[in-house]
Amino acid sequence: MFDPVEAVKELVRFPSVSTDSSSHEGMEGARRSLGTLLTGMGFEVEVVETPLHPVLLASRGGEPDWPHVIIYGHYDVQPADPLELWDSPAFEPEVREGFLFGRGTADNKGPLMVHIAAVARFLEKHPDAPLRITFLIEGEEEIGSPSFGGFLERYKDRLAGDFVLLSDTQSPSPEQITITTGLRGIICLDVELTGPKMDLHSGVHGGVVLNPIHALCGLCNSLYTPEGHINVPGFYDDVLPVYEWEREELQRLGLEESDYSDFLGVSRFHAPEDASPFAAIRFHPSLDFNGIWGGYQGEGSKTVIPSKAFVKISCRLVPDQKPIAIQKLFIETLQKRCPPQVSLNIIPGHSGAPYLVAPPDKPNTPKDQSPILAKAFKAADQAIEEVYGKRPLYLREGGSIPIIADLKKVLGLDSIMLGMCTQESNIHAPNENLHLGMFQNGINASEKILNTLAGL
Amino acid sequence: MFDPVEAVKELVRFPSVSTDSSSHEGMEGARRSLGTLLTGMGFEVEVVETPLHPVLLASRGGEPDWPHVIIYGHYDVQPADPLELWDSPAFEPEVREGFLFGRGTADNKGPLMVHIAAVARFLEKHPDAPLRITFLIEGEEEIGSPSFGGFLERYKDRLAGDFVLLSDTQSPSPEQITITTGLRGIICLDVELTGPKMDLHSGVHGGVVLNPIHALCGLCNSLYTPEGHINVPGFYDDVLPVYEWEREELQRLGLEESDYSDFLGVSRFHAPEDASPFAAIRFHPSLDFNGIWGGYQGEGSKTVIPSKAFVKISCRLVPDQKPIAIQKLFIETLQKRCPPQVSLNIIPGHSGAPYLVAPPDKPNTPKDQSPILAKAFKAADQAIEEVYGKRPLYLREGGSIPIIADLKKVLGLDSIMLGMCTQESNIHAPNENLHLGMFQNGINASEKILNTLAGL
Repeated sequence: MFDPVEAVKELVRFPSVSTDSSSHEGMEGARRSLGTLLTGMGFEVEVVETPLHPVLLASRGGEPDWPHVIIYGHYDVQPADPLELWDSPAFEPEVREGFLFGRGTADNKGPLMVHIAAVARFLEKHPDAPLRITFLIEGEEEIGSPSFGGFLERYKDRLAGDFVLLSDTQSPSPEQITITTGLRGIICLDVELTGPKMDLHSGVHGGVVLNPIHALCGLCNSLYTPEGHINVPGFYDDVLPVYEWEREELQRLGLEESDYSDFLGVSRFHAPEDASPFAAIRFHPSLDFNGIWGGYQGEGSKTVIPSKAFVKISCRLVPDQKPIAIQKLFIETLQKRCPPQVSLNIIPGHSGAPYLVAPPDKPNTPKDQSPILAKAFKAADQAIEEVYGKRPLYLREGGSIPIIADLKKVLGLDSIMLGMCTQESNIHAPNENLHLGMFQNGINASEKILNTLAGL
Repeated sequence: MFDPVEAVKELVRFPSVSTDSSSHEGMEGARRSLGTLLTGMGFEVEVVETPLHPVLLASRGGEPDWPHVIIYGHYDVQPADPLELWDSPAFEPEVREGFLFGRGTADNKGPLMVHIAAVARFLEKHPDAPLRITFLIEGEEEIGSPSFGGFLERYKDRLAGDFVLLSDTQSPSPEQITITTGLRGIICLDVELTGPKMDLHSGVHGGVVLNPIHALCGLCNSLYTPEGHINVPGFYDDVLPVYEWEREELQRLGLEESDYSDFLGVSRFHAPEDASPFAAIRFHPSLDFNGIWGGYQGEGSKTVIPSKAFVKISCRLVPDQKPIAIQKLFIETLQKRCPPQVSLNIIPGHSGAPYLVAPPDKPNTPKDQSPILAKAFKAADQAIEEVYGKRPLYLREGGSIPIIADLKKVLGLDSIMLGMCTQESNIHAPNENLHLGMFQNGINASEKILNTLAGL
């Protein structure tokens, strides 16, 4: 059996930055490292080409009546810049005081290794265990998984499993594990306003044209009511009420609002309708302006009336909001509100549906929930309580992993998501790290789940 | 007598871009070229060092009771980029179909040369003419003349003249000359809003913090009423009514609104209170957002909640609005309106007072208007009508030349501004050009004014 921490370190040394076209070697290296590992574990490994970065598919077959678990992960990482803010080089993994530091340690190389190591140990002890396992490890998660939908359609048959197991979400602390029961969906829009045909001198012409920055500020501002609601007619129509058991779980979260505001560095929150901040990010849709620009941004002054102004808008959606329908509402609303002195161009960006799953025995658990999924949920519950000493929290998370809704839509599979990192793991940020205690416990818990699934 | 067009060409060959610290040689070359020319005309030339770019001061002394005209100009130019949009290289002057093309041909090397050539011709014919002349040629006009105020204070005595003559404004056409009677003032503000202490993931945290771009859009939008008035309490308090004679002059402008909207490339204007566009830019104050930025501006999406958002605001002011007081109103208003979830930092930028002068015999002509100024105005009126065949228009212009108000404030001097370029001269833009007919006529007109002043 290999050393799981060393295996993560080896993976982290490959700068597999999917958005960076010069990271070809790092992408290939990470893929090869994983392929070698899985081949050594007896898996049949296939590198599936896609229009961009290949998917690594590794199977352990078996009898058709054995349970079949799909383990999802991704081998790509975010860029490491700003490099100067790292205490040790991003791609030279280093253990300090119980944490492993490096880009990808928490997102997603460490949490993925939790399940690889668990499978390795499980198979070492039970080489003939009646369990089919397929690793599905993509290389485009950090860039929105553009090839994933097509891949799923093509590999539907090979992926006809019972459920998906993954760790790509967060838990509140290394001791309190969350089983993530929901994810927000997303829509993105790029908006461009054009006023005069060229930049104008604001002295010579100031006062006769509608400045596109002014028009853009008006449009953006109109998307909120003064009370902080999203002001797009129909936006909230499909929002499902939150179940009481979800609110009760949230009560158990045990985080302090003041710790959260300190972490964010804000003196006060700005949440809708008196929702607690912890409820707001999980249960409510949100709208953000991710970027805005136009005109002169340099030092000093250049007194132009810009010809154009731009904004990037995104919304996080909750069940059962439909991304394409919401995108359409936004486009219609913006078109209706755009002043006639400027012209509007909207480029719809990527989108993803929200996701919601219920563990067994909840009021919203489907009556026809698959017995293997139900068994896996119960196994996870028990394993986590045994290993971490606390029963897991069942909580939605504010982020979006659109492929989870894709897996449900294309393959009909629900996902069991075990949070194997925390807010302090600094994912997407400098000094990303993996809590090694949480990691080792995770391997134990994952192994127990596999044991239960195999009936051992 | 030198060839005035050749003299402009020589000047244009020096890339005297004051904002570009690598243009040292171009700045020095333009200064030296002018110095040589003026020395050759018998002027005593001094290069006055300032904290940034030197001022060229050239005097022709005389008896204390001779009239003393200060001729203002600037030898610096705007940057020439985007270079690819020029039909001939920006710093290689070229004559095509009656126009001289090149950066600085119209702003301000050509119009400045109008008066240098007129003086040369005047002095050649009347070497003993009883007229004191001082050329005051600065090198920082395009960057807001930061050293000019200090220079004026130091050289107050040498500059104790009767009035200032300059050509740094526009006329509606090469045949219809404007004597500019007013300029708008200016204030600039840089506004920075800070929300969370770092950029946040809009999935993980979307919905609990006030996005600083949202706050900024709200603040910017609040600066206008829905009717298009500037919504800063007290902003309009000191605005002087426009004189009836000014409106009558504007009637004579003879430009078509549709030509103006075509030039701007807008389908409709956005002027305050049903003002015509030509009135709006001259008689009304205006507010513009010159630049806005924050968050992600690249391709595709990066779903951050930015920590900061920025906007550059400037206002054009009309008589008798006070720049410092208006700047204070803006700062107070923004502070009052800033939501408590974000913090506000305002950096006041440069400012300049509006300027208004009345030619003789108008209702607002000061009773104590200097007889020499009145004589110069009348000389200019007559010279322009004789040379161009049309009497001049007396109009305010929308732009700001803060040094004109400084000359009034520090030296007590009013300015006679003859517009020697047009909108088609493309100042600050590619293919800047000088209409050579307008230029040669200007020299004739300027010479006539000098003759009258000298009593010849």
